[in-house]
Amino acid sequence: MAPHLVQPGWRFWRQAACTLGASVQHRTWAGASRIPRLGSPWGATATSPRVYRSGFSTFPRAPEVMLTRERYPVRRLPFSVVSGEDLAAFERIVPGRVITDPEVLEASNVDWLRTVRGSSVLLLRPRTTEEVSHILRHCHERNLAVNPQGGNTGMVGGSVPVFDEVILSTALMNQVISFHDMSGTLVCQAGCVLEDLSRHVEERGFVMPLDLGAKGSCHIGGNVATNAGGLRFLRYGSLHGTVLGLEAVLADGTVLNCLSTLRKDNTGYDLKQLFIGSEGTLGVITAVSILCPPKPRAVSVAFLGCPGFSEVLQTFSTCKGLLGEILSAYEFMDAECMWLVTRHLRLASPVQDPSRFIPDQHTGRRYHVAESVCASEPVDPESPFYVLIETSGSRAGHDAEKLNDFLEQVLSSGLVTDGTVATDHMKVKALWALRERISEALSRDGYVYKYDLSLPTERLYDLVTDLRARLGPRAKHVVGYGHLGDGNLHLNVTSEAFSPSVLGTLEPYVYEWTAEQRGSVSAEHGLGFKKRGVLGYSKPPEALRLMQQLKALLDPKGILNPYKTLPAQA
Amino acid sequence: MAPHLVQPGWRFWRQAACTLGASVQHRTWAGASRIPRLGSPWGATATSPRVYRSGFSTFPRAPEVMLTRERYPVRRLPFSVVSGEDLAAFERIVPGRVITDPEVLEASNVDWLRTVRGSSVLLLRPRTTEEVSHILRHCHERNLAVNPQGGNTGMVGGSVPVFDEVILSTALMNQVISFHDMSGTLVCQAGCVLEDLSRHVEERGFVMPLDLGAKGSCHIGGNVATNAGGLRFLRYGSLHGTVLGLEAVLADGTVLNCLSTLRKDNTGYDLKQLFIGSEGTLGVITAVSILCPPKPRAVSVAFLGCPGFSEVLQTFSTCKGLLGEILSAYEFMDAECMWLVTRHLRLASPVQDPSRFIPDQHTGRRYHVAESVCASEPVDPESPFYVLIETSGSRAGHDAEKLNDFLEQVLSSGLVTDGTVATDHMKVKALWALRERISEALSRDGYVYKYDLSLPTERLYDLVTDLRARLGPRAKHVVGYGHLGDGNLHLNVTSEAFSPSVLGTLEPYVYEWTAEQRGSVSAEHGLGFKKRGVLGYSKPPEALRLMQQLKALLDPKGILNPYKTLPAQA
Repeated sequence: MAPHLVQPGWRFWRQAACTLGASVQHRTWAGASRIPRLGSPWGATATSPRVYRSGFSTFPRAPEVMLTRERYPVRRLPFSVVSGEDLAAFERIVPGRVITDPEVLEASNVDWLRTVRGSSVLLLRPRTTEEVSHILRHCHERNLAVNPQGGNTGMVGGSVPVFDEVILSTALMNQVISFHDMSGTLVCQAGCVLEDLSRHVEERGFVMPLDLGAKGSCHIGGNVATNAGGLRFLRYGSLHGTVLGLEAVLADGTVLNCLSTLRKDNTGYDLKQLFIGSEGTLGVITAVSILCPPKPRAVSVAFLGCPGFSEVLQTFSTCKGLLGEILSAYEFMDAECMWLVTRHLRLASPVQDPSRFIPDQHTGRRYHVAESVCASEPVDPESPFYVLIETSGSRAGHDAEKLNDFLEQVLSSGLVTDGTVATDHMKVKALWALRERISEALSRDGYVYKYDLSLPTERLYDLVTDLRARLGPRAKHVVGYGHLGDGNLHLNVTSEAFSPSVLGTLEPYVYEWTAEQRGSVSAEHGLGFKKRGVLGYSKPPEALRLMQQLKALLDPKGILNPYKTLPAQA
Repeated sequence: MAPHLVQPGWRFWRQAACTLGASVQHRTWAGASRIPRLGSPWGATATSPRVYRSGFSTFPRAPEVMLTRERYPVRRLPFSVVSGEDLAAFERIVPGRVITDPEVLEASNVDWLRTVRGSSVLLLRPRTTEEVSHILRHCHERNLAVNPQGGNTGMVGGSVPVFDEVILSTALMNQVISFHDMSGTLVCQAGCVLEDLSRHVEERGFVMPLDLGAKGSCHIGGNVATNAGGLRFLRYGSLHGTVLGLEAVLADGTVLNCLSTLRKDNTGYDLKQLFIGSEGTLGVITAVSILCPPKPRAVSVAFLGCPGFSEVLQTFSTCKGLLGEILSAYEFMDAECMWLVTRHLRLASPVQDPSRFIPDQHTGRRYHVAESVCASEPVDPESPFYVLIETSGSRAGHDAEKLNDFLEQVLSSGLVTDGTVATDHMKVKALWALRERISEALSRDGYVYKYDLSLPTERLYDLVTDLRARLGPRAKHVVGYGHLGDGNLHLNVTSEAFSPSVLGTLEPYVYEWTAEQRGSVSAEHGLGFKKRGVLGYSKPPEALRLMQQLKALLDPKGILNPYKTLPAQA
């Protein structure tokens, strides 16, 4: 059933918005189509993911990315070096899928953010769990380090080699194994692209329990290995709850089959949990069983402007109360984010277009001109904050009533000053693009310092304001956005180029600030290579010790994704 | 806001029920009040849990329960025996809370099902994590085995000693540490009784994400240690998703503080997951942080009769589609369950009272008499199956409309033949009692053979039918009920007394049948002492080996809850 316009809501909303002097525009959306961009997770949405995965020759070389071993103080561990005999052995295991061409390897050596770069000379592309098992058994015997790689869309350098690790790609492990129409249980290989899986289950009346900006490239195995959060976390919760089972190959090649499709199974320790979020350091995930919720019959998105962060928080409280069980996302972004997506990606703000405002010479206030029925009403030039609220429900009429009541309340109380609502699928996508593509816009703005923090919601934006003052003109932009409903702030700072001075101002300050709030220094991105040194800000020494013991138990030679997740040993 | 009658729904339902010849009764509910029963988890609801926990003298002795070491082929492992010096040391750690009185110890040595019995001579009742740490450090040094104990409401003998393990009770660790009104995050000590916590958060507008029949006695720490499922699992999911953090004391006394209150935290391995469902064998959980969902403003329960199991399944599909996001439970029970609760607990069937039906001498059909507006319509004498459907939503009117549409559809299609709906809090509780108290009714029927299985929903009831035929008159009752929405069958068989012949017919047959369906031999009860030998029916050898390695890593001396969860070593 196609989503349709929430007519009563729309009428009310238009009226209320006018009363309060807001402008409401429904127009063609510049942001509706994605701009393909080679080498980025978003680019792969427009290009076919299968092109990405079957031939790497479409990727440009990236000579300007500094080698990780040159930028960071990291020493190669005493692993073996790939020999001719190893190549011959791998050729027997995965015939025709042993890649040594440097041009092709380049794309797998560099992360999509173009901040880290390994120097692997070997990429293997198994199709089956058995092939992964044989590869790992060989690597274990030969003491060869391995870098498991999914869609290479990670944010913390976890998915590319640091030195010459063998890259083990899941790109060809892209088969759906089964889908159960009654329970919504999907079983698939680890290399399935999230967007392909979404399409597969949506055709059958379900949705994937997770959604990410990188869905066009990221692999479900990588999602699980990094415990990806994303845009549906608020509604469907963590992968620790929605992943029903998985199959992983341990460092020595042992296949651990915990690919249960049962919602409940209390027979012994829940071993699959060990691998969810361990970033490929404890085993290579080869298949996943995941519970898909029923596809909502109606989806609406409200994109609203708020006059301050306090209003963003109060709007959240209000919408939890009034939208209840249909609330499926509550995202926020600040005005600088909006500037970046409109400037770098040519997306149009649905709420206001600052260029359309002219100042009143007497009062200094700015007025909206043209197109809007409310054109003569005074409005603020641009909202300092925007929130994106998504509802997903089983009955459009009920959802619209709930949404209207909510909008009426936030407008009449002044928590929201402006906004628009969409139920049409393409318009919903266009509104989401404003939020989903912030990371892409940032990467076009310069060198990006990225922080992904969990903080108490009431203090969440203080850090952004604080850093803006501390950095002054040394930063191009200091922006805050993220999954407010989950207490998750994406704090990003851009500068023209990498600057040790900016970095020194940011770190360890950001981590100390977060630790003081008992927050997390990595909410959903993981630690990978770039954040492994800051684990101690969020975990006590006893936890760190147990992690190291688990690593030693499951991977005694340390061949799986070395230099990642765990801090370097002294 | 108090729940109120769904008036439009009620009118529709009454009318539709009449059309189809069903009877609808709203009357005083015999089952509304709980009958206190000492020594059972339900008894503690009526008696104060605090009485239960502060003095054991109210419990009768249970000499008739055979000692576990005499009934089962189990050998004591070479742990030390508690000495006078140990007692003195414990007295220094928990002064006045070192219990050696055999009368008091009896209640902690016997499980509530009265099927297993240990012979511990020592019960310790710490109040703080530090005390637990000191106790375990001492036990570790002295090689004393420890049996962590919460509310002692487990189904598989996991919560009582097998031999003379020191009983470490969490009963006095019953403090709420914090509750965050905006996020709904509760942090509390492990010994808090689930019902007390429910009350605490409900007063603040939230609900606990789990609910169990044993809520009046069970401890949250025990719930987490056994990964309890229960009645809200369908809506709020597994504890692996809702538990945000926990604090556990390891075997050597190390305090592992992972008591995060963050929804997202991807800093390293998610260590808390190790302890969820490990039944106290890897560490003693001392505090829990858990995410509570907002309290629904409207709750309705429909209790319906279905003419067959196929109709139970089709009703489930229909209600998933039409109730969508407000569906919060889908439970089923067979006619024998109804017989047991009406006979042993004097609860009244809300759907029909067979005594009120009189046979028509010409047709043999039975007719409902008196009270009902539909009295002259023919109905089946009793439904072969009953389902309990709960909806929880934020808007009573919307929920009622959805429920009415659902009822109209299942009645008109003949999937449901009879039923009643309640929105009043007390009537909702009374309907739930019919389902929640089945286990109690069974325990009054004789010796109970209990199985808790996850199976594909479409095959779920075949096993019950099959066993009824296999056992014939040797069984008093063979009943099936459970959380159909989660694919979880509680299969129970009663006989006058324990019978090796009945057991031999049941096992390993039930486990083999389950394994053939790739089900789980313990969906939510865990393995404890009684099921640890059947782990292999649901887990491959590689998983078993990894479990043993984890046990050896975390508890190298094996002092924590020995003889539980993991199969006995050859």
